[in-house]
Amino acid sequence: MGLAGKDLLSMRELTVDEIRLILDTAESMKEVARRDIKKVPALRGKTLINLFYEPSTRTRTSFEIAGKWLSADVVNISISSSSVAKGESLKDTGLTLQAMHPDVVVIRHPSAGAAEFLAKRLAAPIINAGDGAHEHPSQALLDLFTIREKVGRLEGLKAAIIGDITHSRVARSNIHGMQKMGMEVRVAGPRTMLPRFVERLGVEVFTNLDRAIAEVDVIMMLRLQVERQQAGLFPSLREYSRLFGLTVERLKAAKPNVLIMHPGPINRGVEIAPDVADGPYSLILNQVENGLAVRMALLYLIAGGGQAG
Amino acid sequence: MGLAGKDLLSMRELTVDEIRLILDTAESMKEVARRDIKKVPALRGKTLINLFYEPSTRTRTSFEIAGKWLSADVVNISISSSSVAKGESLKDTGLTLQAMHPDVVVIRHPSAGAAEFLAKRLAAPIINAGDGAHEHPSQALLDLFTIREKVGRLEGLKAAIIGDITHSRVARSNIHGMQKMGMEVRVAGPRTMLPRFVERLGVEVFTNLDRAIAEVDVIMMLRLQVERQQAGLFPSLREYSRLFGLTVERLKAAKPNVLIMHPGPINRGVEIAPDVADGPYSLILNQVENGLAVRMALLYLIAGGGQAG
Amino acid sequence: MGLAGKDLLSMRELTVDEIRLILDTAESMKEVARRDIKKVPALRGKTLINLFYEPSTRTRTSFEIAGKWLSADVVNISISSSSVAKGESLKDTGLTLQAMHPDVVVIRHPSAGAAEFLAKRLAAPIINAGDGAHEHPSQALLDLFTIREKVGRLEGLKAAIIGDITHSRVARSNIHGMQKMGMEVRVAGPRTMLPRFVERLGVEVFTNLDRAIAEVDVIMMLRLQVERQQAGLFPSLREYSRLFGLTVERLKAAKPNVLIMHPGPINRGVEIAPDVADGPYSLILNQVENGLAVRMALLYLIAGGGQAG
Repeated sequence: MGLAGKDLLSMRELTVDEIRLILDTAESMKEVARRDIKKVPALRGKTLINLFYEPSTRTRTSFEIAGKWLSADVVNISISSSSVAKGESLKDTGLTLQAMHPDVVVIRHPSAGAAEFLAKRLAAPIINAGDGAHEHPSQALLDLFTIREKVGRLEGLKAAIIGDITHSRVARSNIHGMQKMGMEVRVAGPRTMLPRFVERLGVEVFTNLDRAIAEVDVIMMLRLQVERQQAGLFPSLREYSRLFGLTVERLKAAKPNVLIMHPGPINRGVEIAPDVADGPYSLILNQVENGLAVRMALLYLIAGGGQAG
Repeated sequence: MGLAGKDLLSMRELTVDEIRLILDTAESMKEVARRDIKKVPALRGKTLINLFYEPSTRTRTSFEIAGKWLSADVVNISISSSSVAKGESLKDTGLTLQAMHPDVVVIRHPSAGAAEFLAKRLAAPIINAGDGAHEHPSQALLDLFTIREKVGRLEGLKAAIIGDITHSRVARSNIHGMQKMGMEVRVAGPRTMLPRFVERLGVEVFTNLDRAIAEVDVIMMLRLQVERQQAGLFPSLREYSRLFGLTVERLKAAKPNVLIMHPGPINRGVEIAPDVADGPYSLILNQVENGLAVRMALLYLIAGGGQAG
Repeated sequence: MGLAGKDLLSMRELTVDEIRLILDTAESMKEVARRDIKKVPALRGKTLINLFYEPSTRTRTSFEIAGKWLSADVVNISISSSSVAKGESLKDTGLTLQAMHPDVVVIRHPSAGAAEFLAKRLAAPIINAGDGAHEHPSQALLDLFTIREKVGRLEGLKAAIIGDITHSRVARSNIHGMQKMGMEVRVAGPRTMLPRFVERLGVEVFTNLDRAIAEVDVIMMLRLQVERQQAGLFPSLREYSRLFGLTVERLKAAKPNVLIMHPGPINRGVEIAPDVADGPYSLILNQVENGLAVRMALLYLIAGGGQAG
């Protein structure tokens, strides 16, 4: 079993063994992510294309640095949504890039299924870095890595994912990933942010924050798309914050040593209070550091042809 | 004879021997473009600046990857047309970059003559990656390379270039390049897209697609600037497509094994039907792959001080 | 004494010894800036992040090339002011980047104090590449380097800085730097462009160009923010140019071998006439070349842990 040459499109498609392989490989990459080792030659001569149809400082930078620390050549292509209209189709952009023989293509796109669409047409392995409201598997993998690193295991842990579940690719990827690794998952948010089919995902559903976070080991707050709420949707920004914003006060309903996560970028004072984000149980910055380790592992396994040693 | 330190501004100025040198060098670069060899140290320590005043995924990426596979440092500068107004002049940007001592500058600019303007003022060699409706020599070189690779020779072949000849730098560069290499060139398009002086270029002129493509070895479709046609020009988009769009049906007028080329990005269903673009005689993706080989050859010959072995 | 791991936020905070260390180190970097040596491995394995909240071709490119010639990995992040509104705060962007363990972060930001704000929160050393109207220390250092290189010393020289002193970070950094190195500084401009507290800076103040440039060794022209003047401020663009534009005619009021500097980009015909900008005493392009040497020195001293040999 290995991932050499394979696509990484979703957590739903990964097997438990594949997830373990990625997490174990990421562990050996932590020496680089922590800068004890500065650079490894694993991908020397390999070319990574970062194809971003949505702006993203965090994920793009993380893949770019991961590639460079593995000695790959990294080429960034950012295509603004405004230029898509008069530009070529995703299919033709994909075929064109394919003809340049990249060793791996990382794609972010506003449409669900864009990564899979490309994967079907390209020989080069594709890593989905977020496709609409569908999935964002490297985020879920770094989240799993961070929890496992902190607690020592994943099995039997309980997590609550809080926010706009309907529109969150982070939620979707984490639900699949956590369940596969033996975790129990709850979701919570206003009814308007819970998908109708949410029960089918095998999660417990809450519309009350206090009840959702009681007894869990991990609270994962989602970024609120403030633009969306400002457009006059229910609940209003203020009401959302009052009902679902995580504050020190609200945390009293949770276990004393609960772990707090957020994929970033955070809206301070909206879904998470500053003293919670910066507090002792927050793993937000660990997630960023581990993002590098996990993405190095992915690039190494997929484009380097290697396996965890 | 060599190209070390010289500018590449137009096909009109290249000699037949220089074109042959570039194509022969590109042949030896194909091992890298095909990824049999991952990277060569030919330009280690050299700096390539990509100076783009127009957005371009394809050409910019191609030069960037070509430079990186030759081990050069590549610096991308993209200047949007909106910022040109309040920014500094092309002359001053050029002088500034010059003072940073790049080994080669690749420039794309919306004004014809911009590359030559810069070349006159800078010591660093300039490669014209498209200047207005004037020339795009690296495109013509990769087109010649692709035809030669497929047929084995250029001399005596006939090509038809179809579309908006007036506004096409690709057409202009290919007309000069093909004629120099002993090819016969036809152009075809609606009268409104044929420049008045077209006869002076020494090409046969057609306003009928079927007649233009009869008996030729190569059909080169040009990208229609859809924005231009949508502005209400004659012919309308629909009419253009009916009269000059290349379909499987229309191809019956051509030789059975005619080669089909397009510089990309393609407008599927406008100037070229999907089943033609993706069909067995389409060289569109070969053009992209060969673009890397040809651009590596150009960078190597111009900035590396080398010659074809 | 060294700069390893320190921030470079302002000329005001640098000591005379630190300035000398930087200028001396830059001298040894000139071999690379002049391309006699192509590349040095001083920062191999180190990662430089260029974090630009304002567009900047010149400064960003200069830091990028400086980093690459020192063999560092360079990651560019450009955040448009439009996306700041709905994006994360500077603090959170900083903390996120911090978690990726860069070895040095170069930041340009429209707000005075942004670099210091970041420096207080990040372990990684910060280089201020311009923060609002506050400071732009690497510019002042390259200016000092250029004067010292030309004249052989700084002490005892007189400089006149001409233009919109109120809004110029270049002026502010140069006033501090020049004074520390024993130079006498004059400023000149229309009253509306002189800050109220200008006397407190210890400079002589002029509202007449001829008098300001008489007897000085260096004239430093500032870029006029044309947008600002076009908004109807006094003086008008034309009047500004008549009163404070440096022409060959006006230069008669100065010493015959006066040195002329400008941080760029220049407005030809506004604050400086073309034949002055391109004339024999203009150091404008020396400034750009020396910018590379000085920025290599800064990156080397700060991120390389080295000292001038």
